[in-house]
Amino acid sequence: MQIGISEADSLVARALRNTGFSAAEARIITDQIIGCELRGVGFAGLSRALSIIERTKAGPAPRPMRIERDTPVSAVIDGGDSCGYLVAHEAVRLGIEKAKANGIGAVGAFNTWYSGMYAHYMEIATAAGMVAMAFGSSAPRVAPHGASEGRFGTNPIAFAFPSNDQPIIFDTGTSQIMVAEAVLADRLGQELRPGVAYDAQGNETIDPLAALSGAIKVWGGHRGSGLALVVQMFGIMAGGGLMPEDYRDCGFFFIAIRPDLFSDEATFRARISDYADKVRAARPAEADGNVRMPFDRSAETRRQIMARGTLEVPEALLAQLEAIARG
Amino acid sequence: MQIGISEADSLVARALRNTGFSAAEARIITDQIIGCELRGVGFAGLSRALSIIERTKAGPAPRPMRIERDTPVSAVIDGGDSCGYLVAHEAVRLGIEKAKANGIGAVGAFNTWYSGMYAHYMEIATAAGMVAMAFGSSAPRVAPHGASEGRFGTNPIAFAFPSNDQPIIFDTGTSQIMVAEAVLADRLGQELRPGVAYDAQGNETIDPLAALSGAIKVWGGHRGSGLALVVQMFGIMAGGGLMPEDYRDCGFFFIAIRPDLFSDEATFRARISDYADKVRAARPAEADGNVRMPFDRSAETRRQIMARGTLEVPEALLAQLEAIARG
Repeated sequence: MQIGISEADSLVARALRNTGFSAAEARIITDQIIGCELRGVGFAGLSRALSIIERTKAGPAPRPMRIERDTPVSAVIDGGDSCGYLVAHEAVRLGIEKAKANGIGAVGAFNTWYSGMYAHYMEIATAAGMVAMAFGSSAPRVAPHGASEGRFGTNPIAFAFPSNDQPIIFDTGTSQIMVAEAVLADRLGQELRPGVAYDAQGNETIDPLAALSGAIKVWGGHRGSGLALVVQMFGIMAGGGLMPEDYRDCGFFFIAIRPDLFSDEATFRARISDYADKVRAARPAEADGNVRMPFDRSAETRRQIMARGTLEVPEALLAQLEAIARG
Repeated sequence: MQIGISEADSLVARALRNTGFSAAEARIITDQIIGCELRGVGFAGLSRALSIIERTKAGPAPRPMRIERDTPVSAVIDGGDSCGYLVAHEAVRLGIEKAKANGIGAVGAFNTWYSGMYAHYMEIATAAGMVAMAFGSSAPRVAPHGASEGRFGTNPIAFAFPSNDQPIIFDTGTSQIMVAEAVLADRLGQELRPGVAYDAQGNETIDPLAALSGAIKVWGGHRGSGLALVVQMFGIMAGGGLMPEDYRDCGFFFIAIRPDLFSDEATFRARISDYADKVRAARPAEADGNVRMPFDRSAETRRQIMARGTLEVPEALLAQLEAIARG
């Protein structure tokens, strides 16, 4: 059903407040949840808000975040088992602050779970004028190339560059499908496409439930597998577990870089804009095709949904959130 | 034919000296050339030494490298049209020096061509105890996903982590094949495998010469394409051209990070070693398969060739290098 964007925003925030999050925390999480709905990424939208609420109620209660090591250009945050949306947000805030002061800020975080949508953090960083990158490790649900059991998380990786127009943001997982996509396929009684998953015995499977007790494949063969490995190792450097349990002990690593370390900032932004336009203008491979920059589609979806003013959300989700919001 | 490793090393160094490189420069380049032969990457070995010599003789003479901007954690180097093997080596040296002093060193470089084998720089960085990454942009010979003309270079990207055993090094190009592979296929009268290249009109081709005047594809579809784009933009931030001409105006970007910013270094190394072993021990997908870490095969090839003591090199290459070395 349709719900107004601000109404959905208020509903999510109230449900989070009723789960024990402070007003400031609820605002940080809600911004990301609604941001995902605005991009059309429903599985990380209102549905994810419910998952966060369930994990929070299951406990134990998080301890306050704590900075363990700190230099002018780096920090590492013990997340105290807080929701990663809050921990990653703090890591990004601190990394940008350090980069503003000293040119570069690299911040790791551990003892956390769910790290949110990396394009969201990348937009925060580019809005502050930063070039940025982020890496997040999680439970070993993804098989290395050549293996049939999990060693990597679905492991998001993101890079971002400010320009004179919208920022250039590349944000991807390193697995063929996200865990949430398999969960959704299972709920809807659908099969996975062939070639993306193994069952617990190491046989290829299209059954989403079998895949969830087995392993998802990487994309890009041995090269994509290497990239997934790199992400897990950045998570380990940040203090995350080697092979974390589900929804705990994940690692998050963020770097912000001030581009004026390398050239005049206005020139840099203009050059990135020029280059992006050159890429968009490349001759399409298919007669009716076009070439997009990675963030273009997501930004266009958001413009359309904001113009419409409403989100399309399953009624059952809304009913659950409303029950929680009423308390 | 077979040639002793130290004999080949001396031959390459003398040929470079006779081309105008100083003894120190010849040593830096030769280490990489022989390093590639030791890894079995022939197209970046003695054959590449000849390409460097040809490009150097064609001129113009390089200007001295010059640091344009400098902070405690960053620098940008105008390479003065020097060979990238020297420029990237200096960027890596300087980045490590800054990271040793201040935790992180990010160094960009521009006005350069050929940037060498990134695993070589990654070994230098991990030997100094650093976590590292490197990105290199070049001439637009690679088509974005959905396009049939070039916008990216073959764009190497590399990440490295020190451990208690050999370092974990991920070093890959972002194109389906390297330009040198197409050149080699053309010389040998071989076809490319299907699905890796377009001709100048944007039609798929298996003719290596047609591919060289057209464009190579990325690997990994739109996700691999996003990664290639990111590499080109790091090259642009470093001062490289948006779409450089062949063998000039490339960009190189390197970051070294001291892992003790985030945890005790010994603990970190042990955790990376443990995790690497866990990945290697993952159940193989094929009964006779095994799971490698990205650098394992390269390190094993090097051990075998060093034990043998000789390189297997085409006679024509040796004859050309010997003629140059005689002067």
